[in-house]
Amino acid sequence: MQTQLERIEVPAREGRALRVAAGRSLRVIDVVGGQVGDLFAFAAPDEYLSASHTRAHTRRLFPAVGEAFHSNRRRPLLELVADDSPGVHDMLIAACDPERYRELGVHGPHASCAENLRHAFPGAPFVPQPVNLFMNIPVVDGDVEFLPASSAPGDSVTLRALADVDVVLSACPQDVLRINGGEPTPLRIELLCPRC
Amino acid sequence: MQTQLERIEVPAREGRALRVAAGRSLRVIDVVGGQVGDLFAFAAPDEYLSASHTRAHTRRLFPAVGEAFHSNRRRPLLELVADDSPGVHDMLIAACDPERYRELGVHGPHASCAENLRHAFPGAPFVPQPVNLFMNIPVVDGDVEFLPASSAPGDSVTLRALADVDVVLSACPQDVLRINGGEPTPLRIELLCPRC
Repeated sequence: MQTQLERIEVPAREGRALRVAAGRSLRVIDVVGGQVGDLFAFAAPDEYLSASHTRAHTRRLFPAVGEAFHSNRRRPLLELVADDSPGVHDMLIAACDPERYRELGVHGPHASCAENLRHAFPGAPFVPQPVNLFMNIPVVDGDVEFLPASSAPGDSVTLRALADVDVVLSACPQDVLRINGGEPTPLRIELLCPRC
Repeated sequence: MQTQLERIEVPAREGRALRVAAGRSLRVIDVVGGQVGDLFAFAAPDEYLSASHTRAHTRRLFPAVGEAFHSNRRRPLLELVADDSPGVHDMLIAACDPERYRELGVHGPHASCAENLRHAFPGAPFVPQPVNLFMNIPVVDGDVEFLPASSAPGDSVTLRALADVDVVLSACPQDVLRINGGEPTPLRIELLCPRC
């Protein structure tokens, strides 16, 4: 049984930060379905969740349930404890940023996961490669494709903190590519305590 | 016809830095064969070759000949102009570092690609994910394997600078995993000018 300590609504196209103490868990919920969440985690300004270190440890493109996301200092930061979704996530693609939208032909300002990280967590010294929850990037013969997220309303992923971490979640504002089905929607975070 | 401006021997287990002006090319040669080279490139302290941005642009796990490695600011920094090797390279795995060797059971100091970067190019503010030339990391159904490099003596890769960049090449000192066939060997860099 887990106690819900806090519930954070992440509006469409925005980001939110929260501190997660070691031992507590974080459930990320795709409220409407088909929405990508870019997740970042920092144990210190210079120790962050690193996709390339995680792959070296798990020997997979994305951790399986029971495996952990590692930091650039090779420490396990977050364990994937439950995946109540189709299990389709990405750990290959950079966070979208203003340059990405210019490249995609957008004129004028556009929200992005990189800017959401900077606003929600000004302590981030740079933008690490995120964990892209619910993002559907199949790899076939070395090619990658950008497909709509396959998550249904209420699908979720639960992560347990193995160290004290600052977590940032961005409800990806991508509306040029079809990764969010063309219409970005909100996400929800629940902070859970297994023994409270 | 290309003029060779400079030739740099990179001893086994060591790293070397060089400045490459836009328009010039860099040939990385696997002298003995079966040796991984971790390559980093910086256009500025806060603009570096980024694997995750490159994948978003090329939509491949590794660029094809004619495609470019991109920076975290979405600028093309290096074009892969020729690949005179089996074409097996990696852009998934973090540089080895002291923590990695501790994790693999090594007691005491051990050279690493991360330390080679720091020594050869003290201007690097952190250790970006490298381009692992000749590294053999097949991806099958989401799993990755660490296999010996398949490059033969004299195999090479040629990259053309599309911006002024500081490039660092580390002859990977990994001798616990078999990625270098158990015995790290030297690499060579040739700096080429197409119109000199």
